Order: sequence, then structure tokens, then C-alpha cells
Amino acid sequence: MKVFRNSQKNDLGFGEKSYNNGSRLINRDGSFNVKSKGISSFNVSDIYHSLITIKWWLFALLISTLFFVVNALFALLYLYCGVDQITSIPAGDLTSNFWDAFYFSTQTMTTVGYGLFAPVGTHAKIFASAEAFIGLLGFAVATGILYGRFSRPLARLKYSKNALIAPYQEINAMMFRMVNMRSNQLIEVEVSVNMVWLNKETNKREYANLPLELKKINFMPLGWTLVHAIDEASPFWGKSASYFADQDAELIVLVKAFEESFSQVVYSRASYRVEEIVWGAKFVSMMENRSGGIVHLDVDALDKFQEVSLNSQS
Amino acid sequence: MKVFRNSQKNDLGFGEKSYNNGSRLINRDGSFNVKSKGISSFNVSDIYHSLITIKWWLFALLISTLFFVVNALFALLYLYCGVDQITSIPAGDLTSNFWDAFYFSTQTMTTVGYGLFAPVGTHAKIFASAEAFIGLLGFAVATGILYGRFSRPLARLKYSKNALIAPYQEINAMMFRMVNMRSNQLIEVEVSVNMVWLNKETNKREYANLPLELKKINFMPLGWTLVHAIDEASPFWGKSASYFADQDAELIVLVKAFEESFSQVVYSRASYRVEEIVWGAKFVSMMENRSGGIVHLDVDALDKFQEVSLNSQS
Amino acid sequence: MKVFRNSQKNDLGFGEKSYNNGSRLINRDGSFNVKSKGISSFNVSDIYHSLITIKWWLFALLISTLFFVVNALFALLYLYCGVDQITSIPAGDLTSNFWDAFYFSTQTMTTVGYGLFAPVGTHAKIFASAEAFIGLLGFAVATGILYGRFSRPLARLKYSKNALIAPYQEINAMMFRMVNMRSNQLIEVEVSVNMVWLNKETNKREYANLPLELKKINFMPLGWTLVHAIDEASPFWGKSASYFADQDAELIVLVKAFEESFSQVVYSRASYRVEEIVWGAKFVSMMENRSGGIVHLDVDALDKFQEVSLNSQS
Amino acid sequence: MKVFRNSQKNDLGFGEKSYNNGSRLINRDGSFNVKSKGISSFNVSDIYHSLITIKWWLFALLISTLFFVVNALFALLYLYCGVDQITSIPAGDLTSNFWDAFYFSTQTMTTVGYGLFAPVGTHAKIFASAEAFIGLLGFAVATGILYGRFSRPLARLKYSKNALIAPYQEINAMMFRMVNMRSNQLIEVEVSVNMVWLNKETNKREYANLPLELKKINFMPLGWTLVHAIDEASPFWGKSASYFADQDAELIVLVKAFEESFSQVVYSRASYRVEEIVWGAKFVSMMENRSGGIVHLDVDALDKFQEVSLNSQS
Repeated sequence: MKVFRNSQKNDLGFGEKSYNNGSRLINRDGSFNVKSKGISSFNVSDIYHSLITIKWWLFALLISTLFFVVNALFALLYLYCGVDQITSIPAGDLTSNFWDAFYFSTQTMTTVGYGLFAPVGTHAKIFASAEAFIGLLGFAVATGILYGRFSRPLARLKYSKNALIAPYQEINAMMFRMVNMRSNQLIEVEVSVNMVWLNKETNKREYANLPLELKKINFMPLGWTLVHAIDEASPFWGKSASYFADQDAELIVLVKAFEESFSQVVYSRASYRVEEIVWGAKFVSMMENRSGGIVHLDVDALDKFQEVSLNSQS
Repeated sequence: MKVFRNSQKNDLGFGEKSYNNGSRLINRDGSFNVKSKGISSFNVSDIYHSLITIKWWLFALLISTLFFVVNALFALLYLYCGVDQITSIPAGDLTSNFWDAFYFSTQTMTTVGYGLFAPVGTHAKIFASAEAFIGLLGFAVATGILYGRFSRPLARLKYSKNALIAPYQEINAMMFRMVNMRSNQLIEVEVSVNMVWLNKETNKREYANLPLELKKINFMPLGWTLVHAIDEASPFWGKSASYFADQDAELIVLVKAFEESFSQVVYSRASYRVEEIVWGAKFVSMMENRSGGIVHLDVDALDKFQEVSLNSQS
Repeated sequence: MKVFRNSQKNDLGFGEKSYNNGSRLINRDGSFNVKSKGISSFNVSDIYHSLITIKWWLFALLISTLFFVVNALFALLYLYCGVDQITSIPAGDLTSNFWDAFYFSTQTMTTVGYGLFAPVGTHAKIFASAEAFIGLLGFAVATGILYGRFSRPLARLKYSKNALIAPYQEINAMMFRMVNMRSNQLIEVEVSVNMVWLNKETNKREYANLPLELKKINFMPLGWTLVHAIDEASPFWGKSASYFADQDAELIVLVKAFEESFSQVVYSRASYRVEEIVWGAKFVSMMENRSGGIVHLDVDALDKFQEVSLNSQS
Repeated sequence: MKVFRNSQKNDLGFGEKSYNNGSRLINRDGSFNVKSKGISSFNVSDIYHSLITIKWWLFALLISTLFFVVNALFALLYLYCGVDQITSIPAGDLTSNFWDAFYFSTQTMTTVGYGLFAPVGTHAKIFASAEAFIGLLGFAVATGILYGRFSRPLARLKYSKNALIAPYQEINAMMFRMVNMRSNQLIEVEVSVNMVWLNKETNKREYANLPLELKKINFMPLGWTLVHAIDEASPFWGKSASYFADQDAELIVLVKAFEESFSQVVYSRASYRVEEIVWGAKFVSMMENRSGGIVHLDVDALDKFQEVSLNSQS
């Protein structure tokens, strides 16, 4: 009887079956090509998650709109109570009364409370008390969200647009490179690269880990060129670009590092579809030779490569 | 003389003795079936812990009630000083004086301070100073608690209601599955499954780790079906449902993952009592076949299975 | 020529030389018996560290005193400008002027700003602007400190007052136990125990790691009794209490766990001096036998033990 | 055919090529000697990162200046609307009007709102509403930054100015020491030391890990002297100071520890250029012999050493 133990199976989590023939598993921005049904996204954690990840201009727009709308609602409430419940608002024109009620509301919600407008009627006093309370809690929430936005320990790694097949010692190697786009430092940076392809015979996805020349570095002050030597054990050995295109192949890159400013572990991912691999090319150096003892790194050269002829594989 | 070294004993932390015959060790929500005596829960850390874990409606109710009660207490204090210590509060009716003192209090605590009501007497000035100070610190505390509520890195994993015994290659396997109910990503997801049962002869609990076909995945964009192959080494081998029911058996699931939005490690647990294991069934796929290159996952199908006949164990 | 590689030396960090003969290395509260000279403790990080670790009553006292003192200083400043720079403060009696200036200051710093007192002179306006600004920043700092106090992921483990030498299978074992005093859960709890003693011949400290029957548990819903079997390899083998007293011996306990509510790793330490080890005793169970399927744990019984006779060591 | 697997290559992340002959890789403060071009530093994360790392006096200056400038801009806005839109500002002299508008602005932004100055015109009301809103959000941002400044889990390790080559048992050893300059505790402290030098023949950088007598300690209540025994396998074996100077050699120190007050992992780095290594010297003890059972550590003696003669290497 065979024993079916966990045999170091290498499945990245995408499973064996392919549901999206011909399209990529991981998008260029690191997100997954998956849509879920049945997950109600209306819960506080997910709303918070959205609010700390949206763009700044959108966040500013949202919070300003919310401030306007809530004040308008309170203004309507004060109008309903009667403007005579608030000092210094003259009776009369509904529009100007609404706006005065609106300004009273903003002065209450922000707790400025100049006092020129002040509640004198019972209902206005109740609503004004509630509004100031809600206002302060609202700004407490905003404080939390703003801090959440600031303090996310993101690794802003930028990957070269292409992976290259370049000559390497007496054989060839698959190479790509990355650079840290932030001024913080990444420490103990670790990279793993896997290849995924569709086995046309079994119609199942297969996975292979690609060993790297160097898979962990202590510091990353410069860019890092990842090198997978194409020896006989490599899935690239003796294969050409057209072979992989036919197999719907994709390289999945997972980077783990320690981000120094927030003292936390961060992850980053990338993927190279077979179309993004260039056969017979090598990267142009990003380092500039200058005098003065300080290394100069030109990040704009990240994607630059030049054509070279490959070593033969035999 | 025998040497009694630590022999890789597998105790999950529940000990050898059983104190709760017939009831589960871990509840469906992941909490433990234990009550402690002698732990005074009245300390700040535990109060904070409660405040960040209770439901939102309860939190809102609590904080509003607190706001009301503290203002009422200060109102009583101002009444005691005499309403003549506050401008614009007319002497007279006690009830209306109380409410005016209450509104003065809310205007002070929220630091709105319109000024229509303002302290003129010495005692009122002292109490108003204290109240504004307490109010601001109170909202500082609320800010901390609100941020604490938002920023808890929870893994909201949902587990299939049942674990199944299903045919697997030429043998059978125990399977259950789980899905991430949040829009964030879980990375480096690792699962360990243990079986606990009561040995009727020794009356002691025994533990066995169940090896999995795959115990770690890099990403979990889709649901994950955990598979324990029932080979000769498995405690399920040659056993039926009734055998385990008699042994008070329970599967303990521990999941560890890296939560991407908060960059922190999170844990989740689940348990399957023997009654929740279905012999002879397999899961219905959650993936929907659609065109367009994007995988569609139907979370509502998580619990769905269909009956199948098992492979014989011999 | 001998090769002097790092030979798994076991030094906990206290070094080989003993500087405090006869006193403990780790105090009962987990702090170290070390005083440093030359470390100026007047830096912001250490002040923050102090403010988040002092007792709550002391923190409340400090912050209230600070509020009082800063307002008194601003009051003096306003007095110096002249009370005629503030509306509604009548000229005259210096004491009453000081207190009115003080209340004006509190109304400014808390940003209540009723307006009955309001700055009209230029200097008063300048100082009032500065004070409101400083006040808001001060409450921002207080918010940070309060959150820091709340969100410290502490493991409040309580250790049994004594370690015991108890009979264990056919030999004896050193045992102590611990219990989680908070309502949160500790996961993946890992313990290491080391013995430190002074070698009277070399006058150097020696260290030995004590292997445990079980050194890691997945969950700790109940108390945990740590067991070090005294076999021939143990430093306790064939030794009596008096032997160790002479050697200035101490057991150093280091606990590492994952705290679930803050999703962070926490450490706890404890130490048992040889005087705190009881030869010939075993712990009384903390579990109460009750009906109902819920385990009842009596934390008050943590320190309770009863005398027993030991197995002979031969 | 040779197989080119990842052969435990030891590259710290600085690469093989040298771009800064003769200058150090890591500065004394732990920063890297690299300048990047093409990284726009104008993004929110990097601004936040700057704001939490700059000196306190600079932070205070920045935030005060910002407060002044924003209020001046709003003052200009109110002037443009006309001072008649604000109560109690007398028409007339432009300068005094500006300053009154400025104080109205500060009273609005800090939400003091005494009310002596209050907006009566429509434009003034709109701008005042916006200013109070912006003010509160601004202080929310300040709260986040202040908390970020406080709560950075920094390891303030101080390293001895020099590394020493000292006699050690019957051979010699390279030693340096470090001390924790903060009152918090570092746990599980782990050190790795690498030597980098330029191979003059290949003109490539080479790396060697230097094994330590003890590379991890559980606690660091005292200073820690790191010891690399110079045996035959060491790159120091049989070499003199002049040999390494010629090779542009540098020792790279990486320390990893668990910081107890923030429950987070922290890293620290240091480097010793060959000029900073003293041949034939040993450290003077930092421990003071006093009575009382408490160890006294004199941090000021960190750099002190005395000359000794070395053991011969043969």
C-alpha cells in the first residue's frame, strides 16, 4: 500500500486547474486576477481598508463631501426646529436661513462655536449637543484613518519591465532586476521565483521553483539583479521563447523584506508573462561612474537593456 | 537508566486529562471552552481589549451613554453651585435649570463653548475648566479605541461547515476548505491539523498531527481545500464514523498567515467535531466557468458537497 | 593548531564574571538587577517609554499637574500683559485677576473659548493664539501616549511562587507552572529554561539549558505546568537543595508567545532562586470538576502544592 | 555539464563591483553611501518618513511655521472679503486689519472661537467653516505624526569606536563591543559580522562571514563584547593591519533584536573600516565593583582600551 504523505508539492495557491486560459495570474501591480461573489464588502474592516488604500485626492474629496453632506443634513434639522431656536438668525428667506443653519452646523461640528449663532431652543440645544459629540468622534475616526494611511509599511519596489535571457558564465541565465523606490531601507531581502505553466496533455497547471544565484541579501541600497542560471535542471534548458508561449507560462516573483522605518515585514509580488521575457539581451548598468566616493544609482535606467547573443545550450 | 528527554510530545495545550467529556474544546467561532476564576478582569488592558472587540452597535451605545451620564453628573454639579454662576440661565424651575446646566455641560465637554452659556462664578469656572480638560482627554481615549478597532489585523477566514471523507486517488482523504472573507490578501498561509480524542482505556486525551497534501501556500486568492490523505499511518485508516464518535474526537485546525494590509501575522482556528465530518462526500467547486480571463469564485458555495462512494480500505 | 569556532556556547547575556554574588540576576517582576551610568535618560523615546509604562494613577496625576502648571504660567503671562487686554476681567485685586487669567487660559488651551473672556489687546491675542496651538498639540501628544498605553501587547503571565522537585514517572522532575492573567489568548507559546550558577573553582558563571518535556504548545487556554525530567544529564541529578544554595544557583525562564488581540509576539521572563525551589512537593490541580462541559480553572490555586516523597536517584 | 546552483554565495547586497574605491560602504550612523537619481521623493509616505525622523527642534520649527503661514494666508483671504464681514474688526489701517484677520484665523483654526471676532458675511462664513475643518484635520495629521515619532521601535545601540585585535586564549581575536543606550530591554539579540574587501587581482569585492564565539544572547542588560577568534580559517590569520589597508577592507556589523517596549523586531548596523581596527589592545571593563548586589555599568567607558602584546600566529 502506497503512503501518500505531503510530498513537498509546489502549489503557490492557484491550484491545478486553469480557469483563465491565456490571461495572467498576477497583474503588473501585484493584484490577483480573481473576482469573488458572495463576499459582502460592507463591513467596517473592509471600509477602513479601502479608506487607507485609496488615492489621496479621492480621500480628500470623500472626506470633504461627507463633511458637507452631514452639515447639510443637520442644517435641515435646525430649519425643521425653526431658526428662531438659534440666536442671530433672522426669520425670513428659506435659502438664506438654510445657509445660516448650515454655518451654525459647521461651527458646531468643528466645535468652533463663536457664539454669534448659538442654540436657544430646546431642540436646537439637543441637536447641537449631539452634533458636537458626533463631530469630535468623526474627527477621532479621521485621525485614525489618516494615521492608518501614513503608517502602512509599504515596499515600493519597482521591477524591470522585462525579464531577460542573457549569457552567464559559459551558459545562459534568466535575469530581472528591481529597485527600491522609497528613501527607507529594506533589510534581509529574500526573493523566490516560481514558474507556472499549463501542461497541455493533462490540462493541469504545473509549478517549478527557479533556484537563484543569490536569494537573500542583507541590505539593498542599490538595485538588485536576480539571476537564475539555466542549467540542465532548469525548465528553460534547451527551450525557446515559442515553446513557453504555447504553454501559457508565467514567472511569479515573491519578495519578502524587513522595512526599517516601520520595523515590519513587507511583501511585494510581480509576474512576468512569457511575452515579457526577452531572449538574448542583457541589462545596462544603473550605476554611474563618478568621482567622490558616493555611489550614484540611476533608477530611470531600470528597464534598459541591449541585445547580445546567447551561449549555445548543448 | 532511561533518559527522559523531550520526545516531541504532541500536546496542543489542552493537557492529557479531560475535564469536559462530550463537549468541544474549540467553539465554532474559535474561542475556547474554558472559564477562569480568580482573574480580576477589571484592569485597563482587558477593558481596552473588550472595547476594541465588542460589536459596533454596542460600542456606539456605550460611548453615547457614557457621554450622557458624565454630562448629567456635571449638570448636577453646576446645579449644586447654583445656576446664577452661569450666564443666561434664568433662575427658577429646577427641571429646566437642570437641562440648561446639561447643555452648558455638553457645550463645555465638546469644547464648542458658544458663550451664550458661560461660567461667571468661581466654582462653575473651576468645574468647567476640569470638564473641558476631561472632555478632551476622553476624546483622546476614544480616538485610541477607534483606531484600535479599525486596525486589528483580523483574518476573517470562513471554514466549510463540514469536513468530508472523500475518495482521493486510489484511497480516501479527509478534506475541508476555507475562504478569505475580506478583500485584503493573505500571504504565506500555513495550516496544521491535529486530531484529539479520549483514549477510553487510559482515560487520557491523545493527540495526532494529520499530515496534509499541501500545508503552505504562497497566496490565497481563491478558496483552499485542505487534504489529509488517509493512508495506513492516518488515525482514520480503517475506521468508521461510529468509531470516532465513541472516542469524543475533534479535529483542531490552526491557520497562520501574513495579512497584507496591516503587514502582520494573523492566526485563525477552527474545529470539527466528529459529528461534523461527513463520510462519503465531496465538495462542489466554488469556481465558475466564465469567459474573459478573470476567475470567478462563488463564496456562497463554500459548504456545498455531494455524496459519493468511498474507495475501500484494505 | 586548534580551531576556535563558535561552539554553541550557552551564555544568556549575563557574561561569565559574577558582579553581584548572592543576589538574583532577574527580579520577580522580570526586570534586571543592573544599573547603568552614563546613559542620559533625558531623550524623547525614554520619556515616552516611561509615560506609557507608569501606573495609571501616576499618569493621571502627572498630566493634571502639567495642565495646571502650564495654565498658571500662561495666567502669569496674561497678568503681565495687563488684564485690560482681556474682556470682562475687572481691574483690581491681583489674586482674583490671576484666577480670571487662569480660567481664561484654561478656556483657551482646551479651545472651549466661551468668549466672555476674550483677548482684545495685541499681546493677549498673540499669546492666546500660541496657547490654543500648544494646547491642541499637547492633546495630540496625549492622544498618542494614551494609545501607546492601551495598545502595548503585554503578556501578563503569572508564575507559581515556587518551582518544585516532584516525583515524575520512575524518576523526579523539576516543575513550575504559569497562567495567563488576561482575557486575551496566547498562541504558539514557547518556553526555555536555563540554570545559572557560580563555579566556585573558576569563579565563573556557568549556564545549562534544561530540556523540557514539552517546550511549545499551540494554545494556552489553561495553566501550563512546565516539566524538566531529572535524568542523568540534568544538573539536578543526584544533587540536593543545599548543594545548589552553595552555588548561588538561579533558574532563568524565558517565555515567547503570540498575543492574539494585538497580533504581536510578546516575551515574558521569570526566575527562581534556589531558595524558591521546594524539594519533595507536587502542585495541586487548578482545574475544578464541575458538570456542564465547560472547564473551570481556579487561578487562585496557582501557588498551591502539597508535600510528597521523591523517587530515589540511583 | 556543470550545474550552477545557488552556492551559498555571500553577498551582503553591495554587489561585486566597487564604485567607491577607498570610501566606506556604511557610514558610522548606519546609513549607506549611495545616492539615487530618478526617485521622486515627493510622495506622502516619504514625507511622513521624513517628518517622523527629523530632529525634534526642526519638527517644532516646521509645524509652527506651517501654522503661521496657513493662518497668514487665511488672513489675506479674510482681508480680501473685507473686514466688515467679521464682527468687531474696525475698518481702517490695513496692517492692524491684517493682524486682526490673522487672530480671527488662529481662533478659527484652533477652534477656540471666542466669538468676539465672528464671521457675519457669507464669504467669511464659508472660509471660516473650511478653515475650522482644515484645522481639525491638520491637528489629526499632527496627532498621527507625533504618535509616529514616539512609537518608532529604535534600537539605540552604541558601538565601541574601535574594533580591537586582542589576545584570546592561546591565539588572538577581533573584538568590539556595544551597549544599549536606552532604558528599554533588547531580547534575543543576534549579531552577524562580515568582512568586505577589494580583491586587487580581480578588482571585485569579496565577502567573508566572520564566525563569532557567541552570536546570540537572550538578554542584553549589560554591554556585549563580540569576539571573533582568529584561527586558521579567519581572514585575519597571519595578516597585519597594513595588509588590509591595502585591500580597502571593512567590517559590516548587522544586529537584530526584539525590542520589548514596542514588541517589535529592530535592526541596527555598524561598520569598522580597517583604520578603525587597533592591533594589540584590549577593552577596559565597563563593570564597576561595588557592594550591594546590583551590577553597575559605566557606559562612558565603552571606547576605552589599553595596549597589550598579541600572541604569535604560527
